[in-house]
Formats: sequence, structure tokens, C-alpha cells
Amino acid sequence: MHKVMFYPHNKSITAEDGDNLLRVAMEAGVHVNASCGGEGVCGKCRVIIEEGRVEGGITEKLSSEDINKGYRQACLSTVKSNLSVRIPVESAIDASVLNMPPSPRRTARIREMNLDELKEKGLFVPPVEKRYLELPEPTAQDNLPDVSRMVSYLKAKYDEHRLVVELPVIRKIPDILRKDGFKVTVTLARPVHEGSKTHIINIQPGDTTDRNYAVAMDIGTTTVYGQLIDIINGKVLAQHADFNGQISYGEDVISRIVYAEKPGGLDKLHDVVIKTMNAVIKKIVAQAGIDPDEISAITIAGNTTMTQLLLKVNPRYMRRSPYVPASTLYPPVKAVSLGIALGDQVAALVYPQISSYVGGDIVAGVMGSGIYRSEELTLYMDIGTNAEIVIGNKDWLACAACSAGPAFEGGGVKFGMRATKGAIEDFSIDPVTYEPMNITIGNVRPKGICGSGLIIMVASLFEAGIINNLGKFDRDLNTPRIRETDGIFEYVLAWANETQIDRDVVLSEPDIDNLIRAKGAIYSGCMTLLEEVGLTVHDLQRVILAGGFGSYVDLEKAITIGLLPEMDLDKIIFIGNGSLLGAKMSCLTNRIRLDVVEVTKKMTNFELSETASYMENYIAALFLPHTDMNNFPKVKERFEERKKIKNIK
Amino acid sequence: MHKVMFYPHNKSITAEDGDNLLRVAMEAGVHVNASCGGEGVCGKCRVIIEEGRVEGGITEKLSSEDINKGYRQACLSTVKSNLSVRIPVESAIDASVLNMPPSPRRTARIREMNLDELKEKGLFVPPVEKRYLELPEPTAQDNLPDVSRMVSYLKAKYDEHRLVVELPVIRKIPDILRKDGFKVTVTLARPVHEGSKTHIINIQPGDTTDRNYAVAMDIGTTTVYGQLIDIINGKVLAQHADFNGQISYGEDVISRIVYAEKPGGLDKLHDVVIKTMNAVIKKIVAQAGIDPDEISAITIAGNTTMTQLLLKVNPRYMRRSPYVPASTLYPPVKAVSLGIALGDQVAALVYPQISSYVGGDIVAGVMGSGIYRSEELTLYMDIGTNAEIVIGNKDWLACAACSAGPAFEGGGVKFGMRATKGAIEDFSIDPVTYEPMNITIGNVRPKGICGSGLIIMVASLFEAGIINNLGKFDRDLNTPRIRETDGIFEYVLAWANETQIDRDVVLSEPDIDNLIRAKGAIYSGCMTLLEEVGLTVHDLQRVILAGGFGSYVDLEKAITIGLLPEMDLDKIIFIGNGSLLGAKMSCLTNRIRLDVVEVTKKMTNFELSETASYMENYIAALFLPHTDMNNFPKVKERFEERKKIKNIK
Repeated sequence: MHKVMFYPHNKSITAEDGDNLLRVAMEAGVHVNASCGGEGVCGKCRVIIEEGRVEGGITEKLSSEDINKGYRQACLSTVKSNLSVRIPVESAIDASVLNMPPSPRRTARIREMNLDELKEKGLFVPPVEKRYLELPEPTAQDNLPDVSRMVSYLKAKYDEHRLVVELPVIRKIPDILRKDGFKVTVTLARPVHEGSKTHIINIQPGDTTDRNYAVAMDIGTTTVYGQLIDIINGKVLAQHADFNGQISYGEDVISRIVYAEKPGGLDKLHDVVIKTMNAVIKKIVAQAGIDPDEISAITIAGNTTMTQLLLKVNPRYMRRSPYVPASTLYPPVKAVSLGIALGDQVAALVYPQISSYVGGDIVAGVMGSGIYRSEELTLYMDIGTNAEIVIGNKDWLACAACSAGPAFEGGGVKFGMRATKGAIEDFSIDPVTYEPMNITIGNVRPKGICGSGLIIMVASLFEAGIINNLGKFDRDLNTPRIRETDGIFEYVLAWANETQIDRDVVLSEPDIDNLIRAKGAIYSGCMTLLEEVGLTVHDLQRVILAGGFGSYVDLEKAITIGLLPEMDLDKIIFIGNGSLLGAKMSCLTNRIRLDVVEVTKKMTNFELSETASYMENYIAALFLPHTDMNNFPKVKERFEERKKIKNIK
Repeated sequence: MHKVMFYPHNKSITAEDGDNLLRVAMEAGVHVNASCGGEGVCGKCRVIIEEGRVEGGITEKLSSEDINKGYRQACLSTVKSNLSVRIPVESAIDASVLNMPPSPRRTARIREMNLDELKEKGLFVPPVEKRYLELPEPTAQDNLPDVSRMVSYLKAKYDEHRLVVELPVIRKIPDILRKDGFKVTVTLARPVHEGSKTHIINIQPGDTTDRNYAVAMDIGTTTVYGQLIDIINGKVLAQHADFNGQISYGEDVISRIVYAEKPGGLDKLHDVVIKTMNAVIKKIVAQAGIDPDEISAITIAGNTTMTQLLLKVNPRYMRRSPYVPASTLYPPVKAVSLGIALGDQVAALVYPQISSYVGGDIVAGVMGSGIYRSEELTLYMDIGTNAEIVIGNKDWLACAACSAGPAFEGGGVKFGMRATKGAIEDFSIDPVTYEPMNITIGNVRPKGICGSGLIIMVASLFEAGIINNLGKFDRDLNTPRIRETDGIFEYVLAWANETQIDRDVVLSEPDIDNLIRAKGAIYSGCMTLLEEVGLTVHDLQRVILAGGFGSYVDLEKAITIGLLPEMDLDKIIFIGNGSLLGAKMSCLTNRIRLDVVEVTKKMTNFELSETASYMENYIAALFLPHTDMNNFPKVKERFEERKKIKNIK
């Protein structure tokens, strides 16, 4: 760890050895002009290394005189010791700006699952267990059928009762018993309900009790995530994600439903998602280096559309008023019967759905995050094209879905893109020169803007007074970066020659409009749901963010634009892919499988389109951060302070 | 009905209009020489119609003078009025023979199932029921998932709880609900165990509660029988049988097991029996003229090998000491998963097995015949290549299998054949001239001898003193019908020109030997099993014969050769295909499905090969009727009486 001191800001920060110096500056809240995203092309991020040692940062943009003086390009420099770094006047903000309060940055704390804690609470009831048996060999005097022999032994030795031996096991038992002298390991699938039957689902020669695995999967509209889990110790042995093959048939759930309505469409979409799943399974099995016959279970979570397509259930009526899905619960089915490339012992457990737009992914998040057994009043949010919101605790749960539109995933934004290489993911602006500091995923020249970057940009432009609370650019600013093209005002993030696409990458007013509508939908969804259950933001004891988006979102900026309510940031935690987490938990314990049925019964679904106040709330939220600034007192204060400083200047 | 009087015997009998006169004579115990089985070829069965009218019977073997005198060929004549029939001297037995006591004939009483009685006893608990629902249509305010809507209604209207909705139903529900204004019929599969869950297995538009069917099947090694059953009233709507397609891969279970051990053999045998089953199902569905979607259940019974082949369970170890089958119980599986051409709602219930050689066909017979709930001590026998024997009542059950060899099915007998057209099925012999009276199935020229015919032949030859109690021909008889060919003594049943095969059809000493070994195995099996449970023949209150063979077997003749113990014939009843009966019963009531598990636990299997006394009993039984004639007092008496008469002559 190295200490990095930035001058003239007098800001210090701790960085790891090898950290990118431009990113370190961003993290310290130090603006360094940088258009090209970190590839050394624009040559704007010149800094002087006054003390200490960096690696790299020397390009043809610097003269040998510069280099001798200590000049480096920050975007290509990595920290190798404690540093004193000076931002030269020509590329730094002017003095008055130095006195501005720093724009706060903050990502959510990540919550890890604590397996030991769950074990202590008795929440670990393995759904699948193995037993090792050394059976007596049959003789003329004792020629019980093979299955009876096994069952008698399980009763005598392990006190196992109420056993159902599944047909695939009966098919295997004659040969398997005789492979290793009647020494075998059987896999027992435990009933979810006490008093129901235990199913013997697999039989293997010899002792394999130390190897028992499960697969957890999240079927996202865009991405399919899989984890290979060791059921014995709860560890994730491997994970892999791949784009859902259904993308070729439509980007969002609506277009998938439309496709499914075509002749053969449902079968096609089923087949391609199974293909994706099988590819992911193949990958994680190979990564972990296990025998796939040792996999005993798979749990799958996905939104209602993904679930119906996976199970080949016609989703036609989900996109038509009154938006009725086929079912809440789905019975476990054999994975092979769906085409999943696992052994015939594996039952596929699919998370239940609440409504057409609050699906198994959200239920899985509620189960995996433990809201359903927590005293704390919690707001759970999973933000994607649709945002799903759950409010509640162990006593009650309410949920709603709002259509945010695809802005957070790069849709409806001129240069919007998914969070992949070349997307501007971090941004700062010089409030005087209006020069940008772009940081891209992969430190390459920009191609576009991803969701989390978009939030930071709009928040930064708003904080710098470059856009107003309607998201419109100040028409009076004298900078080539703000311009009118075909009647549309836009800000040039990077000039064509600094990009990968040989076009100026810009952020336009319609883009900002889209973001405002998206954040307005989500914010008003939360507010409406809170109102419906008679609560306010101040009653919330915890906010859980889930989904890929949540990991990158800058909480302060999200509050600045009014996406999240202004609140104590310590209450906000991030759980990553909540759907996958729930799937994983369900692989590890039957308690979740039992409880989830109660949870789905308990959860009240609110159709926002049927809730009178939703539209009012929505319209009030179509401002930065909100029509009523009193809901955002800290943003208001910061905003006024900055305005004052700027006006003084 | 017509009265037919035979002279000079002075025997009368009642016949139906159109009955074959030769068969009527046989039934009356009147011997008429007849070699050709009833096709008019041999011309020996000349009779004089002294009074009354027959149809047919006039051939070129009769001169016009004969015809005018009233001569007819009995085998081609049918009864059309009351008759006086004279057997002319040239083709009748001589006078002394007329005084011989008649050889008694008797077939078993047939027992029909009484459904009403079962209903009264509460034994009718339908495994599958239908319910008609008129659901409220969804609105924006009430947009429950389709399945939840259906389940809520079932709870409210029919007090149905603990429902599992199966995936195929979920797949259908969105469209089916909307086909007829949310009016639907659902099919509920009831749990076998009280407290378990009811599964919703089908959904249909409109009200179909008056149509609910099941299929019962018996998978025999030779023949597959199917019945289409109306679950609502218990009626058999259609039935059909076809040869098991596996016959091409081996006649008996051992050769099937051998074939199943070859690469791909098991799959092949599975596929062909499914093909046969599907053909039978297609036939009965067409016969009954029902919609196959209305079929809700199928129950299947078969011997252990047939069951394992059907379920694709390797039967390899069943033919190797210590003869271990895979399992007793098999879980219900979806019929479609076995390839059975029924709807995906149909679960296939397969009868449990006791041992490698006491299979589901016998268990089905025990259930169908009701032994397991009867006070009466019963002997249940199913005779085929293997004979299975069950002794017991509602308190206990013991079973054993003995390998009878294929004699009863025509195997191991030079001219043995299955009971099909051209098989001699009935026989009598002139004790003086040794001329035969052959009656064949279909009244055509003989091709061979079927099992029931064989028993009658051997008993008749024995009674006539033509063979001795070792089954050897009397070497001193002067008739061309008894001859030595290649060192083997044989009796010519029909000369080449009287047969369909242009060869003499004979019964040889090795044939008789085979029959004696077969009947000895069965008789000693019964005796050994009785001894093992500490009982004797006299303790038996009832004997149940099952199987195709049982319907034709002449009980008196079977006792004469010592196949059945000598006993009160009124105690013997015939239930037909016990396996099919059990399959049918299981379609109609869950009680059978519940009880059968207890029955299989209760039934003690005796391996005769491991029972010391079996070999002794077997050797003692290798005589006609038995070494110890005191076990057969009536046979002994009759035999001695006849011998006396004959000696007098």
C-alpha cells in the first residue's frame, strides 16, 4: 500500500501497488482532464511526479524535457511507491475550485453470506445427502431384491424411513451393487415438508460421500450466471456467466414474449436458453474439475418471463392486460426433462413467481438476502430494465415492479452501452473549463457510456451547474464541448480522434431525459409502495441493492440525481446478484425451499399502474433530484454552497 | 336350446342352436371317431340323424344312399332342433364300453367381480377424479396467476387442499382457461397415502366430468392384454390382446434375459413391448370410441422379467444364482416417459414384484381376486411356463414359483403348439379300437396339440389303460396307431392326409414325460409350500386358477394326471387373467394401491430350489397321478373299476 498525495489539492489517498494513477486521482476526488478514457491518446492527463516512483506514463506526447521534469501521463502510470503528484495548472481546476467541497463518492458496502451464522441458526438443512453402505452380498438363503437390500440396510444402519427409490436408481442398482462388492453410496433427496418421503436419487459404487455438488443459476434476460457449489461446506467452487442466447430473439422480455407467440417460438426460446445454461454448466464443471455425476441438485431463479420460457409455459398473457402469469409455484422437475445436461438424478428447483413483473429472481433475492427472516424493515431494489422493489421484513412483504426503461443498461441513450470494455464508467468535470475526466472500463478509448457512468455524469453536470434541474444545458456557457446539433443540445465527452469509433462521443439532452424518466420511475415506485404500506423513507432500516448495476452505482451520485432517496448511506448494502444468491441458498438448505412457499403467500403485489398516486409521484420525480428539494436536504445544501462559490468567482 | 339324445348310449345333453354336433357329443361324453379335428376330411365321424334337423354335414364321403338314411358327418353338422343321434356300430365303441363309467369332465366355475359389493365395502376410492370449475375472469384488480385462481377456487368450492399442480397442466392452463370463458374441468390424482398431496394432472376446457377412463394392461411373456375402463362406473368398455412383440427375441423369459444382456438388447426389448402396448391401446381406444385425452391412468402388471424389461431395468442377475431381481416396488412414472402413447397427464402404475419368479402378475392376481382380504384359506395358481403358487388369506401369504417347463404352452412336445387354430384341444379315445376323437380349435385339420388338449389326451390314454402310470405305452396293443419310430413309442393322433402339415401328428413317450415332469413340478410345488406353512390339501377352502390355461383345463383330467390335488371341485374357481383383473382393480381404487404395499411386505417367498423336501416331493409326483395313489382315492377307484370291466371283456 502506498500513500499518494495530490497537489495543489493537498488531498491524500491510499493506493495499492500497481494501481492506475488516473483512477487513484478520481478516487481521491481530484479532477484531471482526460478525454480518451485512459489510453494515452488525448495526452491531457499530464501530471508531475514530484516524489516517488511510477511505472509507465511516458509517451510521445511528452518531450524529453517534460519527462526530465517528472511529467507523466496519469492514465498510463501505475503507482509503485508513496507519491507526491502535482496536477499542473494548465490541466487543473483553478484555485477557487480547489476550495469547493469535494463531491462525495461512495459505493455500497458488500454483504457476504455468513454460512456459519446460518448453520448456528439451524437454517442449514441439506436438501441432498449421501450415505455410504456396505451391504451383505446376497446368497441363496438371502436373495432379497437389490432395492430391498439397500432399503433394509438404510433402515437398520441409518434409521432412514419413508424412502422412495426412483426409477433411474432402480435401473442402475443391479450393476452398481456388483461393481465394488456391494459397497455403494446413495444420494438422498430430503423432503421439504417434514413427514414427506425421502427420495433415493442416485447410487454410486464405493464411498463418494465426500463429493456432493449443486448448481445455482440465475437466468437473466441478458445474462445467465451459474455457480458450482459444494453442498457439504457451502463453498462456491466455480462460477461463470454468459449472455442469454435468447438475446438474438429480442433484447427485453416483451420482445421475447412476442417471439414466443410465433409458431415454434416458445420451443426455440426454450432451446436456446437451455443451450446457454448447458454451456455455463460445462464451464463450471470443468473449472472445478469435478465429475458431473456428483451433482445432485440445481436451483434456478429468473424473472417470470425467463421462468416461463425455461419451462415452456406460454407467456402470451403476461404482456396483455391484466398481465396474468401462469403460476406462482412450479413443482420440481427432472433437469433432464428440460434438456439440462445433468444426470437423471438431478431435480431442477425453480423459484416461484409473484406476478408477471415480480419474478423468481426477486423472490430468490428476498430469500438469499434473508429479508424474510429479518426484524429490520428493509427496502430491496433490483435495478435493470425493470426495477423490482420489495419492502418488508419477517412479518410482511410488499412488492412492485416499475418499468425503468433500458437507460441503465445503455438503451435509449445515444452512446449508451452495456458495462463492457470502452464504456465510460467514471467521470468528473472541471467546473470552470468544462473539460471532462473520463475513465473507461478496460482503460481504453471510449466507445460509449454505461449505466453507472451515466448517473455519475448527470450528477456531476448537475452539481457543476452545467445542466439545470430539468436536465437542460445552460445555454450561456462558452465552451465547444456544449453544442447544438440538429436542434439537440449535447456535451462532447470525447472528440472523434480520442474514441474507438471515430465519432464524437456525446451526452445529449434526450439522453438525460431518458435517465430522468428511468430514475423517476424507480424513485416514485419506492415512494408509492412506501405510501401504500403507510411508511416513509425514514422508517427504512436497511436498503439492499441487488443486480449487476448495484455494484458499480455511486450512492452519492444516485442520491444527487434522485434515483435513491436521501438517507444514511450506512444503511445501504449491496448483495450482488440476489437472484443467484437465492439460488445458491436454496441448493444448501431445505429451509429456504420450505419458507419460500410461505414467503410467496405473504408477499403482496402492488400493480403500480393500478395505484392512483403512482403517476403523481412519477411526475414529481421528473426533476433533478426532485420537485420537492426538501426531500433531498443535503443535495440542496451542497448545491447551493457550490452555486455560491461559483457566483463569487 | 335343443335336447340331443345319443344312441346307443342313451345319453342326452342340452345344446344351443348352431352348436357343432361333434363337440356336443364330446361334451356328452360320447366318443365318436374323428381324426381330422372336425374338418370333414377323415370321414370317420359318421352319425345317423334319426330325428330332428341338423345343418350341414353332407360331404362327398357320404353316398346319396347314406344321406337318405340320415347319415351325416358330425364334425360338419350343427344342431338346429331337438335331435336323436345314433352312433353307428362301425364308428362307435363296442357294447361293453358303453357300460363303462363316464370319464368325468368339469371346468372351473368362473368368478366375476362384483363392483357393487366392493363399493359397499368402501373398497372403491377412485384414484383419479374430475372437478368442473367456473372461474371468475381476471381483471386489473384481480390478476392472480392462472394456477392460483384455479387452486383458490378448488379450495373454496370443493374444499380441496394440499394440491400440487403438475408442469404439463401449468403449460396448458393459460390457453385452456381462455378457450371457454374460464370454465374448465381439472383431473385430480388422489394420493395413495392419506395426508399426501393431490396432484392436478390435467385441465380441459368445458365440463368433461362425465368422461374419465383408465387402461389396465397385463404384459405376458407371450401375450399383452389391454382393457379400457370407465373409471366412473367400473365398466370395461373395450379389450384387446396381441402377441408380445418380444417373442421374436426369445420364447421364454430366460431367452429374453439373455437377449437383454446383448449390447442394445434391453433397449430393443423395451421398445418392442412398448410398441405392442401402444398397438393394443390404439385398438381399445378406437373400439370404445373415446378421446384418448380422457384417459387419466394406466396400471400395468407383468412377471418380474416383463416388468424389468418394460422399465428398462437390467434383468441380468435374475437368471443367475441367487436369482436377485432389482426391486419389489417401482415408483409411478409418467407413461410418456416410458414411450407409452398416452397423454402426459397419465402416470403408469406398475405392480410390485416379490422375487425373480413371482412377479407383478401374481401380485395383481392376489389383489384382483381379493385373497388378501379374504378369511378363506386359498391356493392361487397361475400356470404357464412357470407356475406361480400363492397360499394364504388376509392374515398371511406365502408364495413360490416352479419351473414347469413349456409343456403347457406347447413347448418340449413334438407337436406341441399354443392354443391357436388347428391345435387339438379336446380328445377322447375308443378304449377298444384305440381310434381317437380329436377336436381342434377352429374345427380345422390338426396341426398339433395345445396344453389343455395334452392333459386330456394323457388322462384319457391313462384311463383307457393305453399308457401306464409311468406314461409308457402298453407294448402289447395291436393297433397301427401305436408304433415305434426311431426307438420312440408314439400314438398317432391323425394321419398325414388328415392334417394340415402333411405329417402324422403323434403324441410320443417323451412328450408324455415332459407333461409328467411339468405337472410333477407344479403339484410338488403346491405340496412343498403347504408343508412349509404346516398345512395339507384338506385345509384349503378355495383354489383359484388364473391364466389363459386355467379357463380350458378340464379339472377332472387335471386331477387324473395328478396336476391338481384331488379335492372338492366346487372349491375350485377360475378368475381368468388374474394379472389383468388386478390391473383393472388398481385403476378403480386407491385402496388396492395402498394395500398392495402391505401385501408385498406380508408375502413370504419360498425358493423351492432351497427347500429340502421339494426334490422328494417332485420325484414322488413323477407318476400318473402320483406314487402314492392314496392321495387320489377317486382316481384310484375309477381306474380300478375300468380295469375290471376291461379285463372282463
